[in-house]
Amino acid sequence: MESTAYLETNKQRFLNELLDWLRIPSVSADTKRKPDVMRAAQFLADRLKDAGMDNVKLMPTPGNPIVYSEKILDPKLQTVLVYGHYDVQPADPENLWSSPPFEPVVKDEKIYARGACDDKGQVYMHVKALESMLKNNELPCNVKTIFEGEEEVGSVNLDNFLRDQKSLLKADMCLISDTSMIANDTPSICVGLRGLSYMEVEVTGPNRDLHSGVYGGAVANPINVLCEMIASLHDEKGRVNIPGFYDDVKEFSKAERDEMAKAPFSLDQYKKDLDIAEVVGEDGYTTLERATIRPTLDCNGIWGGYTGEGAKTVLPSKAAAKISMRLVPAQKSDKITKLFTDHINKIAPKTVKVKVIPHHGGEAAMTPTDGIAYQAASKAMEKTFGKKPIPAYEGGSIPIVASFENILGLKTVLLGFGLNSDAIHSPNEHYGLFNFYKGIETIPFFYKYYAEMSKG
Amino acid sequence: MESTAYLETNKQRFLNELLDWLRIPSVSADTKRKPDVMRAAQFLADRLKDAGMDNVKLMPTPGNPIVYSEKILDPKLQTVLVYGHYDVQPADPENLWSSPPFEPVVKDEKIYARGACDDKGQVYMHVKALESMLKNNELPCNVKTIFEGEEEVGSVNLDNFLRDQKSLLKADMCLISDTSMIANDTPSICVGLRGLSYMEVEVTGPNRDLHSGVYGGAVANPINVLCEMIASLHDEKGRVNIPGFYDDVKEFSKAERDEMAKAPFSLDQYKKDLDIAEVVGEDGYTTLERATIRPTLDCNGIWGGYTGEGAKTVLPSKAAAKISMRLVPAQKSDKITKLFTDHINKIAPKTVKVKVIPHHGGEAAMTPTDGIAYQAASKAMEKTFGKKPIPAYEGGSIPIVASFENILGLKTVLLGFGLNSDAIHSPNEHYGLFNFYKGIETIPFFYKYYAEMSKG
Repeated sequence: MESTAYLETNKQRFLNELLDWLRIPSVSADTKRKPDVMRAAQFLADRLKDAGMDNVKLMPTPGNPIVYSEKILDPKLQTVLVYGHYDVQPADPENLWSSPPFEPVVKDEKIYARGACDDKGQVYMHVKALESMLKNNELPCNVKTIFEGEEEVGSVNLDNFLRDQKSLLKADMCLISDTSMIANDTPSICVGLRGLSYMEVEVTGPNRDLHSGVYGGAVANPINVLCEMIASLHDEKGRVNIPGFYDDVKEFSKAERDEMAKAPFSLDQYKKDLDIAEVVGEDGYTTLERATIRPTLDCNGIWGGYTGEGAKTVLPSKAAAKISMRLVPAQKSDKITKLFTDHINKIAPKTVKVKVIPHHGGEAAMTPTDGIAYQAASKAMEKTFGKKPIPAYEGGSIPIVASFENILGLKTVLLGFGLNSDAIHSPNEHYGLFNFYKGIETIPFFYKYYAEMSKG
Repeated sequence: MESTAYLETNKQRFLNELLDWLRIPSVSADTKRKPDVMRAAQFLADRLKDAGMDNVKLMPTPGNPIVYSEKILDPKLQTVLVYGHYDVQPADPENLWSSPPFEPVVKDEKIYARGACDDKGQVYMHVKALESMLKNNELPCNVKTIFEGEEEVGSVNLDNFLRDQKSLLKADMCLISDTSMIANDTPSICVGLRGLSYMEVEVTGPNRDLHSGVYGGAVANPINVLCEMIASLHDEKGRVNIPGFYDDVKEFSKAERDEMAKAPFSLDQYKKDLDIAEVVGEDGYTTLERATIRPTLDCNGIWGGYTGEGAKTVLPSKAAAKISMRLVPAQKSDKITKLFTDHINKIAPKTVKVKVIPHHGGEAAMTPTDGIAYQAASKAMEKTFGKKPIPAYEGGSIPIVASFENILGLKTVLLGFGLNSDAIHSPNEHYGLFNFYKGIETIPFFYKYYAEMSKG
């Protein structure tokens, strides 16, 4: 394709533009970063205009705007709706970064920056693939793009936006690059994602911090109480110990599990990579299964009392934890949120006051492998990687996949080019130059095959 | 006594001087405050000189200096060694203070500032009582003072100082005001203190922060592991679940417990004051007993993962907690520290690495009520309060009481004028003007009666 040659000629410019974008700290969880989030949205809109997209606009929501653009060649042709997000995770703890999170550097053929992979780097592949096709008259069907700025805080305004803009967003399928492949020499396409219920639990004991010598042993310590409650949330088989938690869980068949087990995986390598002596998890499942098709509960943060240098003999008034559950088909986020809340309130001892705050949730999703959208994506990857991709399950969540299905009636293809080792959500997030360029190369083939298959 | 009249005349100046001293943030746990700690020591030395004490000097240690002074009237007379500390606890969380911790204010007849009671306010009573006696020729025996600057970080250099300065510190008894009374109308003298083992436990899981969606359920989460370990440290009877922990605990007799139970105490008032619905603690003991004559284990701080605004789906690499145990006679801090360390290492699962760091420890102490020092203190309080004080046990720790006994061979009298409601170690620490002035009034009577009883 001409698009491939165009990519070769413009590689360095494409990269430089992405680096400029990564310099904007569009952290949606931090309200102080709101101006940066707006700048990142405007930057993206400007590049979509440069690429040749029409009707580019920042569409307001009660939160951050959604960047819309379109290229309608012929209303009779198929329409692809591309989704991604321009907001990023918080960068803390910043002291663990080898280089500042918002001063991107290219080192060892990788781009290091917050958002390098998740999701600015992957969004930018689409912008540049569209540019490549449009400048070379190779776009074979219609395309619409929506890029949101609140994915990392739960896409709280997206569902209403989809409902309000149903006719504007009319399309035949949804294309998202926000997932990863198994390895650079083992391409894969994500066909399953876990859902999420993200909660916060705050425990209040005495009405003020107390001297632990004067009151210790006689007054419930909110840290100890919180730890006891958290410890009780798993049983001795590694299962989540909340009544009803497993009621709706889809149990995978032996055939499905055998198919999954074909993905290359080395437990030794996995442990070595993480520097851990042993893995954990639910009895009766493999590590890959525990991380993808089984629901989980993890503390994402905990705090309380004195956390500074040295010693302070305080019996604190408050302690709190952020606790999230990963959900699988057919668990429902709302139901799990309620089960969790009820359970915590039930097990909370009378010696303390407990507040349960739901942060956000999202549904698990599965995408069909027998439709032409998946087939076109598979063929495009086979073309550019020289290998047929493996259908794979992922442990993370993209709750909006369920929204596209439920609100717009669209099936999604998750054509991701990241790697699990990219350290997304962690210090030193990075994205391989190979992956960035391979994405820009592959996407035009997807459009080509998708248009061809749709005709046939 | 003339000293009493002198106090009346100089009340406002005494208070103003203390407020000036409280303005110096002598936080020993914060290495950045070292210059302030030094300023506070120098301020104290200057006031001791003003009071008329001799040989005033800052005696260096590997840490903060010890402020020494003396007044030797006649080597044949009894000598009282006064101990106290000029360092203070950290002030955080500062946002919970109604007025800044190092800008003292007098409100509702109370002085609000970090250190107002613990221990600058109580130390300053001695400085002003000495001044009152010296200016009026009413000091009836010899006196030496040592005020240290590391009590709030475990008095790490005091024992060596006592050993090195044995002859300089030769005395007949030790007098300390760093404890509290039952109430302003119920004077008491502390006769028992708990010891302390203060530990830190750090749990490391994977070598970096992970995405909880990608790895959750398959990799041990250090927060969850830490919570499980902490939860396991108490059994269902509220006892500390560490093998050997209770081996050396002195069990109090029924007669001793009956005597203790005579102290006025309202459980309803206690719960109302703390705004708690229920108390907790070891089965078979009262609230007062749990807080004074029984050993305990409390988390003083915990942290790990994301603790900012909103949600971050991280499976953190590390989590840690500060955990302290209050000890009673005849538990030994070193032995308990070892039992705790061995137990944590034993229960730590193989999925994580655990590091146990001892911060500091100190021994429990009891003071005899039949000696003339205690009798003199009791008579002095009876004189100024109009009521005989009750001998009382306290839950806090002044580990140096054991050091004075073991190194210098001195029994201690704990003549404290604070109240448990003074919020020491908490935001809005305060000290009543009544208590400050009553202390300055009482101390000269102690010297008078102690000298008289020593002669007879």
